[in-house]
Amino acid sequence: MSDMLDTIIIGAGTAGLAALREVRKRTSRYLIVNEGPWGTTCARVGCMPSKTLIEAANAFHRRHAFEEFGLRGADALSADIPAVLRRVRALRDDFVAGAVKATDNLGSTGISGRATLLGRGAVDIDGKAYEAKSIIIATGSRPKVPEEWLAFGDRMLTTDTLFEQATLGPRIAVVGMGAIGVELSQALARLGLQVAAFSTGDALAGLSDPRLNQELATALKKDMVLHIGEPAELREVAGGIEVKSGANRVVVDQVIAAMGRTPNIEHLGLENLGVPLDKRGLPKVDPQTLQIGDLRVFMAGDANTQVPLLHEAADEGHIAGMNALAQSPTRFQRRAPLSIVFCDPNIAIVGERQADMPAGSVVTGSVGFEDQGRARAALRNEGQLNVYADRSTGRLRGAEMCAPGGEHLAHLLALAVQQKLTVQDLLGMPFYHPVLEEGLRTALRDAARQLPKASDSDLATCASLGVSALE
Amino acid sequence: MSDMLDTIIIGAGTAGLAALREVRKRTSRYLIVNEGPWGTTCARVGCMPSKTLIEAANAFHRRHAFEEFGLRGADALSADIPAVLRRVRALRDDFVAGAVKATDNLGSTGISGRATLLGRGAVDIDGKAYEAKSIIIATGSRPKVPEEWLAFGDRMLTTDTLFEQATLGPRIAVVGMGAIGVELSQALARLGLQVAAFSTGDALAGLSDPRLNQELATALKKDMVLHIGEPAELREVAGGIEVKSGANRVVVDQVIAAMGRTPNIEHLGLENLGVPLDKRGLPKVDPQTLQIGDLRVFMAGDANTQVPLLHEAADEGHIAGMNALAQSPTRFQRRAPLSIVFCDPNIAIVGERQADMPAGSVVTGSVGFEDQGRARAALRNEGQLNVYADRSTGRLRGAEMCAPGGEHLAHLLALAVQQKLTVQDLLGMPFYHPVLEEGLRTALRDAARQLPKASDSDLATCASLGVSALE
Repeated sequence: MSDMLDTIIIGAGTAGLAALREVRKRTSRYLIVNEGPWGTTCARVGCMPSKTLIEAANAFHRRHAFEEFGLRGADALSADIPAVLRRVRALRDDFVAGAVKATDNLGSTGISGRATLLGRGAVDIDGKAYEAKSIIIATGSRPKVPEEWLAFGDRMLTTDTLFEQATLGPRIAVVGMGAIGVELSQALARLGLQVAAFSTGDALAGLSDPRLNQELATALKKDMVLHIGEPAELREVAGGIEVKSGANRVVVDQVIAAMGRTPNIEHLGLENLGVPLDKRGLPKVDPQTLQIGDLRVFMAGDANTQVPLLHEAADEGHIAGMNALAQSPTRFQRRAPLSIVFCDPNIAIVGERQADMPAGSVVTGSVGFEDQGRARAALRNEGQLNVYADRSTGRLRGAEMCAPGGEHLAHLLALAVQQKLTVQDLLGMPFYHPVLEEGLRTALRDAARQLPKASDSDLATCASLGVSALE
Repeated sequence: MSDMLDTIIIGAGTAGLAALREVRKRTSRYLIVNEGPWGTTCARVGCMPSKTLIEAANAFHRRHAFEEFGLRGADALSADIPAVLRRVRALRDDFVAGAVKATDNLGSTGISGRATLLGRGAVDIDGKAYEAKSIIIATGSRPKVPEEWLAFGDRMLTTDTLFEQATLGPRIAVVGMGAIGVELSQALARLGLQVAAFSTGDALAGLSDPRLNQELATALKKDMVLHIGEPAELREVAGGIEVKSGANRVVVDQVIAAMGRTPNIEHLGLENLGVPLDKRGLPKVDPQTLQIGDLRVFMAGDANTQVPLLHEAADEGHIAGMNALAQSPTRFQRRAPLSIVFCDPNIAIVGERQADMPAGSVVTGSVGFEDQGRARAALRNEGQLNVYADRSTGRLRGAEMCAPGGEHLAHLLALAVQQKLTVQDLLGMPFYHPVLEEGLRTALRDAARQLPKASDSDLATCASLGVSALE
């Protein structure tokens, strides 16, 4: 029994490192094992390199506003794609170094290797068996690519390989228009590449509100060709790769597969846990404890496929780390849902999605940014924002948007959802002038008009203006 | 008595028009009188034209990041100042038309002319006397200019005249570095003009936290020469206007006086109200009713000099409009204080100012943006943000910042102050990745570390991560 560890963490990404922080506070009898490069998906191939690319792309794209602003010479600007990618990698290396630093002084508690579950309390690491009172699975995810597409070799890119390229294009197809596809296709198009994007459905970037999907499609089409319809089929042709979707056909130099991510569970031996697995091979994981059944086995981050977002993975890591070393697991209240796609205008979904709320249970308050004052001054006046408020209580249940500054408006709304605030509560806050938040206020007022009034008195009128009575 | 009006509104700016909206819901027996051009200060000479100028300036300034992003050709860019100003005016005209539209169908209830109070219920308008049961004073403000500086004619500019110029500079002095001075000096400098700015104090743009003033001064000095010290003295010299402050001396083509604003009360006859006036000639106005003493006379907007900001002027107009027609005035709870200066990085002050809180009553949580991930990716990594939390309760009392995206972070914090949230409440919301809001979270965590912990249990640890226990 002296060799029995308190816990083994499998995977040293965002979730695994968060779990490690909690574990280290509580015991020194642990191992963390990682297969492949150390450093998180976020820093290596995810959030950070994509955002660095997007910032360059948007800076370059802004030149289209220059003439109207009264700025001259924009025609002389060009994007040096190899230089853009070099900066992405340089900054990426820096962010990865930051992530890896968390594992610097692990000594013998950190192991590079492949872990396989031998049972509920035992793990094989590259041929050696370890016993532990608990296990935390945080193996992350990787991009999905159809097997047969691998034949295209280094012309078939994913986020794992995209940022490693010396240059790109000039003709690129992006297959899949979820968050990653939308971000990358627009960024590359704005850097001057010829981009054709393919989606099998109308729902782009995770938006569920059909009006907003329409808004986003319109925005994207300004920069690229967007095909929505049949699944894309690829074949080798003279001069490149042909991508075909229904009657649409394009020949490109490279294809980016952005068809979602799949959990890294193939070699894990989840079947040895003795619990039921679904058709993807995943056990049921309680989102509030991260526990698998009643085992002392926890699954956090992308690997459990529940909410594959960095901030959720970090929370899950902390929860799993605490629960793995506790007498009995604590149930944690998860944060209000928030997802953001960093295209322009920003996509954001806060709280409940429009499609998930029964029709009639909410009122929708809406604002278009075409005529919004500050957005006009900034030449960023496109997009729309919808808030969904509970019809009986006025409580803000969610919001979806394709809006300038959406990433910021979404955080404001996320705080409101988290705090269970009503539309009137929000209208009571100060809105400065001239700001994009005044657009949000327009949507809130639109919702307020559709909600039952508390009374017809001056005070009710006043409250709808956001000035609440003191006495 | 058949000629007795219910109310007379003096001034048709933001406050007067807000009052008008309330008045029109309640009576048709009113007059609104306006001296000079119709249209609000905000639309004509304030928020909107300045923001339009700033957007052009910042778009142009962004070229300094181009080389690092991997974008080429920025050297060929130039700012066509006359064209920039033409766009400012074109958009301004549009915003003014929107404001004036609110007074379109006033008919005989709208009068252009000068109003003078004859007493508590009587107003002279260009020689004709009107009686009313109540009066709303909303005459606004105008830029302060020392009398003797008027001798410089059209080389002495204020926000009233700046945007009317065909061109500017090339050498400009800005005297006064409050909100307007800071915004204009930086915008003009970023458009390529040679700007020398003069301030008599260290407190720039209304910031009270000395560390942030230092941060802002450093940022401003990247674009202009900034003199802090003696009051500026002007005199005509060969080749221009000499501006001298202590040992510092500069010769410029034009001077912008940005030394604050003064209420338009000279010809109002406030002395006829029979209430005490202060040395500026202003009566005491209750900020929650906008009432002067116990008279049925109300004073709203810049004229009362309390909070000369558009969103406060609008609230005050509504309050005055409601109270002017009520049996007895209602006391209204005013919104959480919020002011924003649209320089880069943005300045914002939320809730209580640092200088107004007794030392020891609050803890200060701080973040610098130099190493903040998203700010680095965007090449906007400068500035600092401080949050002030009540030492005993953890409640957020205020924040000051000189930070990228500060206008958005300030709204999030304003909602928190308005809702009386604690640092822990805020840490419980989702923070996406990678966003500037994560910088705010760093400051909140810094504050949390200095606050007493609720307990040492796992749950307290957890709560400090923002994951609160469900049970």
